[in-house]
Amino acid sequence: MRIHLTESKKTHEFDIVRTSHVEYLVSDLEKSRKFYVETLGMIETENTKNRIYLRGVEDRFHHCLILTRASKPAVAHISFRVRSDLDLDDIAKLFEKIELPYTWIEPEAKESGLGRAIRAQDPLGFPVEFFADIEESEWLWQNFDRHTGAKVMRIDHVNMLVPDVDSASEWYVSRLGFTCTEYTETAGPNPRLWATWLRRKPTVHDVALMSGVGPRLHHTGLLVGDRHNIMDAADILASRGYLKSMERGPGRHGISNAFFLYLRDPDGHRIELYTGDYLSADPGWKPIRWKLNDPQRQTFWGAPAPDSWFNDASEVRSVFSGEKVKTSNPLLTQKK
Amino acid sequence: MRIHLTESKKTHEFDIVRTSHVEYLVSDLEKSRKFYVETLGMIETENTKNRIYLRGVEDRFHHCLILTRASKPAVAHISFRVRSDLDLDDIAKLFEKIELPYTWIEPEAKESGLGRAIRAQDPLGFPVEFFADIEESEWLWQNFDRHTGAKVMRIDHVNMLVPDVDSASEWYVSRLGFTCTEYTETAGPNPRLWATWLRRKPTVHDVALMSGVGPRLHHTGLLVGDRHNIMDAADILASRGYLKSMERGPGRHGISNAFFLYLRDPDGHRIELYTGDYLSADPGWKPIRWKLNDPQRQTFWGAPAPDSWFNDASEVRSVFSGEKVKTSNPLLTQKK
Amino acid sequence: MRIHLTESKKTHEFDIVRTSHVEYLVSDLEKSRKFYVETLGMIETENTKNRIYLRGVEDRFHHCLILTRASKPAVAHISFRVRSDLDLDDIAKLFEKIELPYTWIEPEAKESGLGRAIRAQDPLGFPVEFFADIEESEWLWQNFDRHTGAKVMRIDHVNMLVPDVDSASEWYVSRLGFTCTEYTETAGPNPRLWATWLRRKPTVHDVALMSGVGPRLHHTGLLVGDRHNIMDAADILASRGYLKSMERGPGRHGISNAFFLYLRDPDGHRIELYTGDYLSADPGWKPIRWKLNDPQRQTFWGAPAPDSWFNDASEVRSVFSGEKVKTSNPLLTQKK
Amino acid sequence: MRIHLTESKKTHEFDIVRTSHVEYLVSDLEKSRKFYVETLGMIETENTKNRIYLRGVEDRFHHCLILTRASKPAVAHISFRVRSDLDLDDIAKLFEKIELPYTWIEPEAKESGLGRAIRAQDPLGFPVEFFADIEESEWLWQNFDRHTGAKVMRIDHVNMLVPDVDSASEWYVSRLGFTCTEYTETAGPNPRLWATWLRRKPTVHDVALMSGVGPRLHHTGLLVGDRHNIMDAADILASRGYLKSMERGPGRHGISNAFFLYLRDPDGHRIELYTGDYLSADPGWKPIRWKLNDPQRQTFWGAPAPDSWFNDASEVRSVFSGEKVKTSNPLLTQKK
Repeated sequence: MRIHLTESKKTHEFDIVRTSHVEYLVSDLEKSRKFYVETLGMIETENTKNRIYLRGVEDRFHHCLILTRASKPAVAHISFRVRSDLDLDDIAKLFEKIELPYTWIEPEAKESGLGRAIRAQDPLGFPVEFFADIEESEWLWQNFDRHTGAKVMRIDHVNMLVPDVDSASEWYVSRLGFTCTEYTETAGPNPRLWATWLRRKPTVHDVALMSGVGPRLHHTGLLVGDRHNIMDAADILASRGYLKSMERGPGRHGISNAFFLYLRDPDGHRIELYTGDYLSADPGWKPIRWKLNDPQRQTFWGAPAPDSWFNDASEVRSVFSGEKVKTSNPLLTQKK
Repeated sequence: MRIHLTESKKTHEFDIVRTSHVEYLVSDLEKSRKFYVETLGMIETENTKNRIYLRGVEDRFHHCLILTRASKPAVAHISFRVRSDLDLDDIAKLFEKIELPYTWIEPEAKESGLGRAIRAQDPLGFPVEFFADIEESEWLWQNFDRHTGAKVMRIDHVNMLVPDVDSASEWYVSRLGFTCTEYTETAGPNPRLWATWLRRKPTVHDVALMSGVGPRLHHTGLLVGDRHNIMDAADILASRGYLKSMERGPGRHGISNAFFLYLRDPDGHRIELYTGDYLSADPGWKPIRWKLNDPQRQTFWGAPAPDSWFNDASEVRSVFSGEKVKTSNPLLTQKK
Repeated sequence: MRIHLTESKKTHEFDIVRTSHVEYLVSDLEKSRKFYVETLGMIETENTKNRIYLRGVEDRFHHCLILTRASKPAVAHISFRVRSDLDLDDIAKLFEKIELPYTWIEPEAKESGLGRAIRAQDPLGFPVEFFADIEESEWLWQNFDRHTGAKVMRIDHVNMLVPDVDSASEWYVSRLGFTCTEYTETAGPNPRLWATWLRRKPTVHDVALMSGVGPRLHHTGLLVGDRHNIMDAADILASRGYLKSMERGPGRHGISNAFFLYLRDPDGHRIELYTGDYLSADPGWKPIRWKLNDPQRQTFWGAPAPDSWFNDASEVRSVFSGEKVKTSNPLLTQKK
Repeated sequence: MRIHLTESKKTHEFDIVRTSHVEYLVSDLEKSRKFYVETLGMIETENTKNRIYLRGVEDRFHHCLILTRASKPAVAHISFRVRSDLDLDDIAKLFEKIELPYTWIEPEAKESGLGRAIRAQDPLGFPVEFFADIEESEWLWQNFDRHTGAKVMRIDHVNMLVPDVDSASEWYVSRLGFTCTEYTETAGPNPRLWATWLRRKPTVHDVALMSGVGPRLHHTGLLVGDRHNIMDAADILASRGYLKSMERGPGRHGISNAFFLYLRDPDGHRIELYTGDYLSADPGWKPIRWKLNDPQRQTFWGAPAPDSWFNDASEVRSVFSGEKVKTSNPLLTQKK
């Protein structure tokens, strides 16, 4: 039985505000800094021997992206901000209820700037974190002379590959209180979900779930102000020799209406420069339905995506062992 | 004693989603149609003998602006959308508690497309409406060939002139559950609020309150996608002879960071074409404080606003008698 | 022996001002009108039973594109504007000198709006026209409310496929007085020209010559004001179902720096929406040299072009017989 | 008798290519560098103890603006590039014929990078220079990562205040071979020229002449790529505290169609950031006529210019004595 994708009517025990940050394991901090700071224009809030904390020009808080030195690229964790500390206790209760382990981050293990935080491996296999408080940082929103490169504003969303979009969506909608704004389903009498766009903040999404070998992180979506920023980013990336980093775009998705440019960072982690969002705050928002075979779903303008965009993604780690999480093949037959 | 501007911690009895629409009384529907539909590119959802219902290209619902034929220009009502019908009953209770009259809109008096709705004259003197349900309309978001003129996306906010910003803000924050994102206060040991930017949806604002002769509506803010749309709008308005309609801008406000163009419609109602918003969803958002004498507060680029921008505003009507609501002078000495 | 690509020092007997218009033979005028007028926003100056005359919003003259009904798509002629009628006589002398036939267009055969004109099949096999005078048309440059679609400003250039770029360039540079701004040549001790960008007006080009099966017209370049117009055009084309019309881009060329979107019109004629030009007026302009194997030459951002972009082009007709001009294979081995 | 403003038919003895650079005397090189290089993003080609040579991102040559340390701000010279060295001799002959002194710049007095050059005080009183050759510099056109601030491309034009626009225009049109693209004239039976837009390169202008106390230089027009660059420049200037530097705009002129932002540099010299040009190459270009009382002439969008824009301008120096050139009042009564 398919999950009910319309907005959850019941009041949730906890209030997730939005997708807040991602921690990427990278092999060479300097190469990553050149890419994210010098080229894309992200702001370096703090760096330690093994970490760089980055934020965008709209961010008032310590970081929306963490780069951590490691021997092999992967995603260490994906973090969601909740309304208050009380919400954290309720989230702990949820994990107890579903009998999945979780851990309160010890002060010495904590990332810089963060308040009380809980980590767990969610039922989909992703390493997730929840927190309410994070240190403020200087707001550079009106320091336009410091907006450079792609002028990245903030993180917008994460896009995850999962073998079973139906059950993964149920986790996010029924358990975590997300709302579905758009979705793709297969044809036929018993349609299955191919992909869902799920949000807490009233935009298109905080989390997208796509059918694929998973759990893997397909990309992190970084918001930019308008299409000019994306054109400028492409020109700047090309000027600096990042030709192979530009995997797809600029272009527009039909689903989500995103105007995008997909990049691969020096470790292959995929970044979407993203603009063209809408407000989905209204009650009674009926999820937009897309057919899997609609040519304008993936690319509104019609140009095909390269194979790598469909096949490659970042592996994710266990929050407990630090080991790679094993992946499964998708339930649905893959196709472009 | 000043109101506490930081986010209300207590759970509200009701959930206002956002500012939803405004009803302007206009003297000549055809002139208004030429301005709003043919020039600014708003979509005409429906028209009757005495009314035009308009929406933007992002709107999935029946209207975000109503133009009603009348002998004299004024604001008939300002409408807020709430989460569900149950919220309406709680709002009715609030008006009972503060002993202000309200009315359930009778089916035959209702505007087109709207569900159950309550109207009242709020403690500030404004004619306000609350509703949860409204008829869906065709979503033209990806019908780019139908986006013309300023390509108005949707209503963003209303800006109200009130004689006492402190008490008006208390109404919105403490009673209606709004959050303050930015504010201006006077200098000295006992600062008074000069203006507040208050939001329900997590953007800069749904309602701005400014010190002035009130209650009057200073302007309705209509969202556009980016700065190009505003430049194009100015060019198109000029091509069609609307020279005097362009009152101020294009420019940027320091407060709110809005990139703006202020227009006066054929009846003098002020419209702000608005872009450059930010996300204010994070808990712990500390309101941005502006000093009244900061030259970049009003105009980030430094150019002064014309006198009319400070002096003119739309009068508001009683929801009961339809008469003009009497105005009072502001508590604080006016200055540019 | 290679031609000398630097600016011709000798004074020419005649002065070609710029590429002025192209006549496309099309199979269905209504389909073409939908594409060029309703979607791309070109202005229809005049139409007759078998022809539509189009201009851009910057054009002060009668047309920059002619669509003529015919049983089979092709290019009927490519037209260059000269300084004055005296130049036409000198061009006639040139064709006499090289012993190629030419014809003065008879008044009854003339296209609408055009003054005295000469036509010939040039040594490359293309049907070319020269004229000095053309009827003025209403300048819509500041009628911004009439700028729609891609807001095409004017014709910028033509791009021709020729089997021998060296000799074709010699015709344009030595005989017609064009200046080379950029070129691609093969590697090795005896480099051959792969492509040249040649101009009369001091921009990047009026004519580009590329190695390929020719004579064929690869595309007509139409100028737009900035990158936003190209993004808007893509969105509008997609909204109207012209998915297959968008062949390549948006993107940027290394050579010429063009920001482009390549379209195929309903008959397969290729149009480049083009912006990002530079001024090449300065004496001493040394042609920019590109190596054939430079990945950023064709696509500054690195994404490959589809095969059709390399293979397809419009056939050209004889100005005398109206028959298709036979093509030859290129001297150089083709490759992407 | 009024000059004939249409394009000169006779072949000129010399060929001026375009307005090439301006030398501003400035009081503090460091302040000027902060403004032009760090904020507007101009490229510093070379600096000496007393001079900074600047170019734009489109420039392939040594400079389009020279800043020279001096005790008092002024314009030292305005420079035009000619086709070849032979043209310089013909220009010398012209000054001999009209019995005005001129000088060949001695190698030791020459500005850096420049070839053979002639200087004179023209009949309007302006210090002018002519040259054909100038050293090449690295072309940064596709080094997009080095395009910052306003991303100034190159110089476009100079705008001069003269007491008698009729006679000044005659000098430029009849003697120097400029073509008039647009002009303003007074009303009445004997119209006088109020302002003229004159060009050599086929754009809107190389030189504009406006009625006023002169000879004085009203502004130097620097080209930028599109409207976004001007918006970004305003934001960046504001971020760096250059509030008072933004004198007028952003806005659009009716005459010339320029999308503009007028700046005052640290010495009060006026700079126009300029975009929105058109091609005026076609023969038979009839100058666009504007009435002095057309409200859209000065400001297409209707907002008035500040008084300083009408009153202030840079004084000019004698090329021989270095003294300030005395000014005269305009023949026509001044008005906004």
